[in-house]
Amino acid sequence: MSAFEQLMAHARETAALDQIAGRLGWDQETMMPRGAAPQRAEESAAIAGVLHARRTDPQVGDWLAAAEAPDEAGAAQLREIRRSFERTARVPADLARALARTTARAQGVWAEARADEDVAAFLPDLKEVVALRREEGQALAQGGDLYDALLEEYEPATSAAQIAETFDTMRPRLVALRSAVLDRPVPQRLEGQFDESAQMKLSRHLARSFGYDMAHGRVDKAVHPFSSGSGLDVRITTRTNPDDPFNCFYSTIHEVGHAAYEQNIDRAYLLTPLGRGVSMGVHESQSRIYENQLGRSRAFTGWLFGQMRAAFGDFGIADEDAFYATVNTVHRGYIRTEADEVQYNLHIMLRFDLERALMAGDLAVDDLEAAWNDRFAADFGYQVDKPSNGCLQDVHWSVGLFGYFPTYALGNVYAGCLYQALRQAVPGLEADLAQGDTAAATGWLADQVQRHGGLYAPREVIARASGIEPGPEPLLDYLEAKFGALYDL
Amino acid sequence: MSAFEQLMAHARETAALDQIAGRLGWDQETMMPRGAAPQRAEESAAIAGVLHARRTDPQVGDWLAAAEAPDEAGAAQLREIRRSFERTARVPADLARALARTTARAQGVWAEARADEDVAAFLPDLKEVVALRREEGQALAQGGDLYDALLEEYEPATSAAQIAETFDTMRPRLVALRSAVLDRPVPQRLEGQFDESAQMKLSRHLARSFGYDMAHGRVDKAVHPFSSGSGLDVRITTRTNPDDPFNCFYSTIHEVGHAAYEQNIDRAYLLTPLGRGVSMGVHESQSRIYENQLGRSRAFTGWLFGQMRAAFGDFGIADEDAFYATVNTVHRGYIRTEADEVQYNLHIMLRFDLERALMAGDLAVDDLEAAWNDRFAADFGYQVDKPSNGCLQDVHWSVGLFGYFPTYALGNVYAGCLYQALRQAVPGLEADLAQGDTAAATGWLADQVQRHGGLYAPREVIARASGIEPGPEPLLDYLEAKFGALYDL
Repeated sequence: MSAFEQLMAHARETAALDQIAGRLGWDQETMMPRGAAPQRAEESAAIAGVLHARRTDPQVGDWLAAAEAPDEAGAAQLREIRRSFERTARVPADLARALARTTARAQGVWAEARADEDVAAFLPDLKEVVALRREEGQALAQGGDLYDALLEEYEPATSAAQIAETFDTMRPRLVALRSAVLDRPVPQRLEGQFDESAQMKLSRHLARSFGYDMAHGRVDKAVHPFSSGSGLDVRITTRTNPDDPFNCFYSTIHEVGHAAYEQNIDRAYLLTPLGRGVSMGVHESQSRIYENQLGRSRAFTGWLFGQMRAAFGDFGIADEDAFYATVNTVHRGYIRTEADEVQYNLHIMLRFDLERALMAGDLAVDDLEAAWNDRFAADFGYQVDKPSNGCLQDVHWSVGLFGYFPTYALGNVYAGCLYQALRQAVPGLEADLAQGDTAAATGWLADQVQRHGGLYAPREVIARASGIEPGPEPLLDYLEAKFGALYDL
Repeated sequence: MSAFEQLMAHARETAALDQIAGRLGWDQETMMPRGAAPQRAEESAAIAGVLHARRTDPQVGDWLAAAEAPDEAGAAQLREIRRSFERTARVPADLARALARTTARAQGVWAEARADEDVAAFLPDLKEVVALRREEGQALAQGGDLYDALLEEYEPATSAAQIAETFDTMRPRLVALRSAVLDRPVPQRLEGQFDESAQMKLSRHLARSFGYDMAHGRVDKAVHPFSSGSGLDVRITTRTNPDDPFNCFYSTIHEVGHAAYEQNIDRAYLLTPLGRGVSMGVHESQSRIYENQLGRSRAFTGWLFGQMRAAFGDFGIADEDAFYATVNTVHRGYIRTEADEVQYNLHIMLRFDLERALMAGDLAVDDLEAAWNDRFAADFGYQVDKPSNGCLQDVHWSVGLFGYFPTYALGNVYAGCLYQALRQAVPGLEADLAQGDTAAATGWLADQVQRHGGLYAPREVIARASGIEPGPEPLLDYLEAKFGALYDL
C-alpha cells in the first residue's frame, strides 16, 4: 500500500471509531438507563482516549510527509487529515486532559448554577475553562490570533475580523426591522392542548416530507433536539410540549436539515475526513434554510396549517394567512434558542463580542454578568430579569465552546445566499411548498451543497452553490421583504 | 503507579471499550436504521481491532511479569488477565483475522441455506470454519486436547471428558423420564390471541418482579431475545407472538436471569475482568433457574395464571393446576430452543458429540447431515423432516462457536445444584413464589453466586453456593420429581 492508502485506511478506522463515540452520545440522551451514567463516563473517556491516540499517532505525520494525492478529492482528504493532525499535535496532552476534565465538571456546575440563578457559583469553574481555552488558543495560534485559532475548529478559513465586519453590516438593518415590527399589532397565538403522540406522528411525516431518509435514520424524543452521526446512520431527536407544537415541528425540520446534509454526502467519502459536514456554519445553513426559508415560508405554512387542522382540529387560527403570521411572530424575549428570525442574530452578536473580549483578556470573568446585562439592555431595550435569562442561558461556555457562537449567524448568512440562488434555480418553488413538496428544493441543496461534504472550504462551497461571494445582504433583503409584508411595514 | 495498578488501569479501559462494542451489538438488534448495516460492519471491525491490539499489547506481558496482587481479588484479576493475554497471544494475527472474516460471511450463508433448506450450500463455508477453528484449537492447546482448549473460552477449568461423564449419567434417566411422560395424556393448550403490547407490559412487570433493576437496564423487542452489557447498563430484549405469550414471558425471565447476574456483581469489580459472569455455564445456571426452577414452578405459575387472566381474560385454561401443566408440557419437536426441561439436555448431548467428532477429525463436514439425522432418530425416536429442523437449526457452528453448546447443559446441571441448596436456605420459597415474590430466592442467588463475578472458577462458585461438588443428580432428581407429579407417573 502507498503512504496515501495507508493514511486513508487509518483515517477510515478513526472515522468509524468517531461514529461509535457519537452514537454513545445519542444513546446517552435517548435510550440509556438512568443509573448507567458513571459507567458511561468511563466508556466515553475510553473511546476519547483511543481517538486522541490515533489522531496524534506519529505515524500519521510520517504518512502525511510521504503521501501523494491521486486526485482532487484525495488532495482534500490530505488537507483535512493534515489540519486535524497539526491541530492535535499543537495541544499538549496534559492541557487536552485538563480541558476534558474541567469542561465535564463545569457543565454540571453550570446546570446547577442556572437552576439556582446563582452566577457566582459558576464563576470559579468558568474562570478555569476560560484560562485553559486561552492557553489552548495560544498553543494553536502559534503567534497568530488566538480567537481565530479557536474559530478554526468550527469554521475553518474564516477570521473573527471578517465576522465582525459582517455583523457590523447586519446590526443596523436588523435593529431597524425589529423596531418597526414591534410597533405593529401582535399576531394571534395558538390555543388549546396538542396531543404529544400526534405531534410526534406529524413530526415524522414532516421529516420524511423534507427528504429525511428513515432507512438511514430515526426520530426519537430527547430533552434537547439534536442530530448525530454521518453517512448511513444519522439520527435526530425532537421534543414535545402539549402547549407548543411548533417547538416540536420546527426542531424536527431544523435537525432534518443537519441530518440531510450528513445523509446526502457523496458515498465515496463514507467514513473519511470528507464524509461529514465541512463546518458548523455550513451545517447551520442547511438546518436554517430547511427550518426558516422553506419551513416558515407562506407556501409551506399553508400546507402545514391543513396538516395541523387534520391532526388537531380547530386551534384558534382562522386561516392560512393568520397561521403564517403566528408561525413568524416577532416577540420580546430573553432566550436565543427561542428567538425569531429577525432577532436571532442580535443574540449571536452579543455573545460574539463578549467571548472575544474574554479570550482577548479584555473582559474579566468576574465582570461577565454586568457586561452581559448592559449589552442586552442596549441591544434589546429592556433589562435581563434573571441569570437563567441572561449570561447563564447557554451551555456553550461551560463546555469551552468559545468560537462556536458566530457559526450560528454565519449559517443564517449562508442560508440567505443559498435561498437567493435556490429561488432562481427552482421557479416552481412556492407551488411545490404549498403542496408540502420540498423535493426540488432539498434536491438542489443536496446537489449544490450537501453531496460535497468536506471537499471544499466552507465559504467556497457556499460561493459555488449561490454564485456569489457569501455576505449578509441576501439574508437581510429576505428578512426585510418577508417581515415587511407580514407586518405591513 | 505499580505494575499491578498500571495493568488494572489498562484492563479497566479495555473493559470499557468492550462494553461499547457490546452496546453496538445491542443497538444493531434493536434501534439501528435498516440501511446502516454496511457502516456498522466497519464500526464493529474498528472497535474489534482496537480491542485486539490492546489485548495483545506486549506491555501487558511486561506488567504481568512484574505485577504483585495486593489481595485475593487482585490475584483473581491477574489470573483472568493472564488467561486472556496468553490465549490471545497464542493465536496468530492472520488466523484471528481469517476467523473473523470467515465466520462473518458463514453466518449469512448459513441463514440463506437454512431458509432454502439447502445443506450443501452451507458446507463449503462450514468446512472453512471447522478447519480454522481446528487450527486455532491446536494453537491454543499447545499439545493438549484441542476441544478442551476451545471449551476453555466459554467454561474455564472444565474438560470435555468431565462433561462426557456427566452426560453419560444424565442420558438414561432423561430418556426414561421422557418415555414415561410421552405415554401420558397431553395437557391443554392456550387458546386465542394475546395482545402484544399487553404481553410487553406484563413482561416488564415480570422482569421487575424477578429483581431486574430498570435503573440499570431496559427491555426492548428484538428478533432474538438476548441480554447484553455488564455492571450499570445491562439491557435485555424479548419477543412477542400473538399466539404464544409464554415465548415472551419465559424469554424475558430467562434473560433477566442473565442480566441480574451482571447487574449484581460486586461494584468493586466494575469494568474489570472480574466484573462479568465467570463462564457461560454459570451464566446459564442463572437464566435457567430463574426461568425453570422458579418461573415454571407450581407456585409461581399459580401467580402468573392470575396475572394472565387479569391481562387477557379467559384463555381456555380452567385453573392453576391445568395452567401449570400447560406451562410444563413435554412435547415432540425438533428445535432445541423450544424444547421442554426434560428433553433440552438431550439436544445438547447430540451437538456435543457431533462437534467433538468434527473437531477431532473423526467426522467429515460432508457427513454431518447424515450423522445428525441418524443420531436424532436414535435419540428422539422419529426422523428429522427438513434441515431447518435438523443440522441447520442453530447459528452456533456458522459463527465458529465450537465448545459452546455443552455450557447450556452445564448451566442446567449447576441450576439443579443451586436449586437444591436454595430450597434449604429459603424455607418459605413456595409461599413467596405463589405471591409472585422472588426477592428471597433471587437475593440468595445474588449473594451466593452473582456478586462474586469472576472471583472464583465456575465449578468453585457453584460448589461454594450449593455446598456440594457440582453433578447432575440434583437436576435429575428435581426433573423426576416435578414431571413425575405433573404427569402422574
